[in-house]
Amino acid sequence: MANSEVAKWSNGGDLFLDLSPERGRGLRTRIENAIRDAIRSGRLPRDTVLPATRTLARDLGVSRGTVMQAYAQLTAEGWITGRRGSGTRVAADRTTQTAKRPGLAAGAVRWRFDLRPGRPDASSFPRADWMRAQRRALAAAPGDAFDYGRPEGMLALRLALADYLARARGLRVSADDVIVTTGFTQSLSLIARALHGNGVTSIAMEEPSMPLHRSVVKEAGVNLTMLRVDDAGAAVEQLAALPDVQAAILTPNHQHPTGAALSPTRRATLLDWARTSDGYVVEDDYDGEFRYDGEPLGPVQGLDPSRVIYAGTVSKTLAPGVRLGWLIVPEPIRDMVLRQRLLTDGHNGALEQLAFTELLRSGGYDRHIRKMRLDYRRRRNTLLGALATRLPELGVAGAAAGLNLLIPLGDAEAEERVLRAATAAGLGLGGMIEGRFYVNDPKPGILVGYAASPEHNFSQSVDALVDALTVSVR
Amino acid sequence: MANSEVAKWSNGGDLFLDLSPERGRGLRTRIENAIRDAIRSGRLPRDTVLPATRTLARDLGVSRGTVMQAYAQLTAEGWITGRRGSGTRVAADRTTQTAKRPGLAAGAVRWRFDLRPGRPDASSFPRADWMRAQRRALAAAPGDAFDYGRPEGMLALRLALADYLARARGLRVSADDVIVTTGFTQSLSLIARALHGNGVTSIAMEEPSMPLHRSVVKEAGVNLTMLRVDDAGAAVEQLAALPDVQAAILTPNHQHPTGAALSPTRRATLLDWARTSDGYVVEDDYDGEFRYDGEPLGPVQGLDPSRVIYAGTVSKTLAPGVRLGWLIVPEPIRDMVLRQRLLTDGHNGALEQLAFTELLRSGGYDRHIRKMRLDYRRRRNTLLGALATRLPELGVAGAAAGLNLLIPLGDAEAEERVLRAATAAGLGLGGMIEGRFYVNDPKPGILVGYAASPEHNFSQSVDALVDALTVSVR
Repeated sequence: MANSEVAKWSNGGDLFLDLSPERGRGLRTRIENAIRDAIRSGRLPRDTVLPATRTLARDLGVSRGTVMQAYAQLTAEGWITGRRGSGTRVAADRTTQTAKRPGLAAGAVRWRFDLRPGRPDASSFPRADWMRAQRRALAAAPGDAFDYGRPEGMLALRLALADYLARARGLRVSADDVIVTTGFTQSLSLIARALHGNGVTSIAMEEPSMPLHRSVVKEAGVNLTMLRVDDAGAAVEQLAALPDVQAAILTPNHQHPTGAALSPTRRATLLDWARTSDGYVVEDDYDGEFRYDGEPLGPVQGLDPSRVIYAGTVSKTLAPGVRLGWLIVPEPIRDMVLRQRLLTDGHNGALEQLAFTELLRSGGYDRHIRKMRLDYRRRRNTLLGALATRLPELGVAGAAAGLNLLIPLGDAEAEERVLRAATAAGLGLGGMIEGRFYVNDPKPGILVGYAASPEHNFSQSVDALVDALTVSVR
Repeated sequence: MANSEVAKWSNGGDLFLDLSPERGRGLRTRIENAIRDAIRSGRLPRDTVLPATRTLARDLGVSRGTVMQAYAQLTAEGWITGRRGSGTRVAADRTTQTAKRPGLAAGAVRWRFDLRPGRPDASSFPRADWMRAQRRALAAAPGDAFDYGRPEGMLALRLALADYLARARGLRVSADDVIVTTGFTQSLSLIARALHGNGVTSIAMEEPSMPLHRSVVKEAGVNLTMLRVDDAGAAVEQLAALPDVQAAILTPNHQHPTGAALSPTRRATLLDWARTSDGYVVEDDYDGEFRYDGEPLGPVQGLDPSRVIYAGTVSKTLAPGVRLGWLIVPEPIRDMVLRQRLLTDGHNGALEQLAFTELLRSGGYDRHIRKMRLDYRRRRNTLLGALATRLPELGVAGAAAGLNLLIPLGDAEAEERVLRAATAAGLGLGGMIEGRFYVNDPKPGILVGYAASPEHNFSQSVDALVDALTVSVR
């Protein structure tokens, strides 16, 4: 009687052999059919060495004679060949193509010059620091660190994050308020669903804003109302005239993608609205660590933690591929957020939580941000210098912070012309209309990300940008 | 004019100082207020060394004289103390409690004897193998490996997974069909939402089944219909009388938690139903790698890949804390699943994908499963032996595979008595009624997980189980 469906194969791996009763009468027939199928489907490529009859018999819990008979039959049929000394192998002429494989070239377009917005320098991810932090954390981690975990994240990480966010970002926060997530997309999805679950039917967002973020919120089942954005940030005074709106999702510290900072007056208006209407502000502090100049204001969460849901991420500070973010959530909606987390994916991975805790505690995270801030500021200055010298007639917005700047343009055709010229030159850029940042009232412009370009051709990328702008705008 | 909100602090970290205009007239006042606030709120604990006036002045972009005046004022007020040679420090008597911290003891209950079901031996997670795989993978990873990724996962991982699943689990799969997820909860949530998005309003699940899984599916907005389960698995012949049901979520290879295997006849009935009604089977193969004896049947996905959505995970083979799983999805609903992934959290982390790819390719994953299979089988045999010898009158179900077995009991009171006796002895167990596995027709029983108990007291845990059963059942 076969007692296992998985046989050890000679390459050290397991091979699934389907020996179920409907596969044929008798174990010998089933073994033959299973191996035939494996060869036909490409699971056993040509020249694969089959296990010795003794080994396969033991793994399958059958007699050696049964396996020998099966091999003999398959040899007779030409599926396998046996030569003394070199073992039994899959014959060349009976194998078909291996399973269809997606084209390896089907990845993302690679730009010769890369000034696409919204992306940090992912190649600067501190691999060695991260691995060191993992090693240290693993040495101290208890045996159950890799068991099912808590939806709010590991306590040690929440303590370290609360300390960091209070110290470096001016939040009013304790570890109780922290929910670890896999980044801003998840944070937004959890919050939108939690608010919806709490009876919120309408949420305000900024225009312009990321189309992905609008889709995430709509998918949660709420209606969207767009708030106008100007040089003083989102026009939050509009909220007073929108009685249905019970939450506002904003980027107060560096409006994405225009780069405006929400003015002190509007911050006061916003929090007054939240308090009097029992509303919530969702603060997306996606690049708050990178401010180069200008009057600092700090997150609105620090002004009233009871009305602000704060969202941060390592996507811009470390790399998007880490998939780590956090929410600071006022007590009344915390349980709803945790419920959503349990119903979507449970909790974050253990290893990344352990490593990031260690990186925060050791000061390594601060050091990396400081280094990147200097690096990005230098790049920004190079870019600003080139634009000011060679295209002084163009305006530039949002350059005081973050990883992008915006060059507003007069008309949609100009944006299209610049993007076309850039593409022709192998230069990746963002467009305000092309990127679907607007819902109602599109304003054209070029979005330039200066963080992700490889260092070795950054100045050539800036030259290519100036060329594309010169040809198309003048 | 202050040009930065973040000052380098003497401990190497950053400190946020809110110097915004509404904080007071003049920079000196704002600096004083910011430091006072930081001390009051506990962000600057007692004895923290303040930066030298020269350093802080440079970081904030103000004159050194301004900082000196601010320090002098704070010293006069007793907030900080300055002694020549030891720097300026936060004074002891003015600091308040640091931010409220959650009790460290508030974690999960720790059992003296742990036979709770559904959990693998998380302490056996192969830390060294995993770290080695990470190191190797990182050495070969391109610079953009940590950038935003594709929702279906890295191509290299999908190729390696397709090979593994075809070889070791008998699936009919190519890399195109694979979607990497963070585990079964996410897989189920994505599938339920994708099916709902495709117009599915009613889904069948097994009774008994995990209450969490039922909640995940209901949260997606679909109605649930429960299928009865007997010794031949779920009664899929019921589907023919349920015209609204368009998908069935099953554990065909080892029904959870009864342990029944779906019979060949019922497999055929199930796939006939799916083909004739244009329905989908969601196959939760949560512990398929661990089969110890009994007739092997293999996943139903191998019988008809066009009608089966297959879900696997490393939660039982490596550890739940890794957060890694996969879906094999037929082409017609693949885009909907990917859309849901984009709208919930984007994609998996880079490092775990790189590491797992390497572990699959190197054969390390196969080796680990083989090792754990032997280990778990040994534990199961110990447990079965003890039950057969000391409590021969009790039945045992579901022991041929997986990490749990079921001891059916005659009445709900017996289950309650056993669980009460177990708790009194410090023994963690599962109960069929207590665990809310049933919706309509509860059947009592004790669920025993034999994988997660620490090795050093496994046999004592088995003794404690026998005691709890003896006292309560006889």
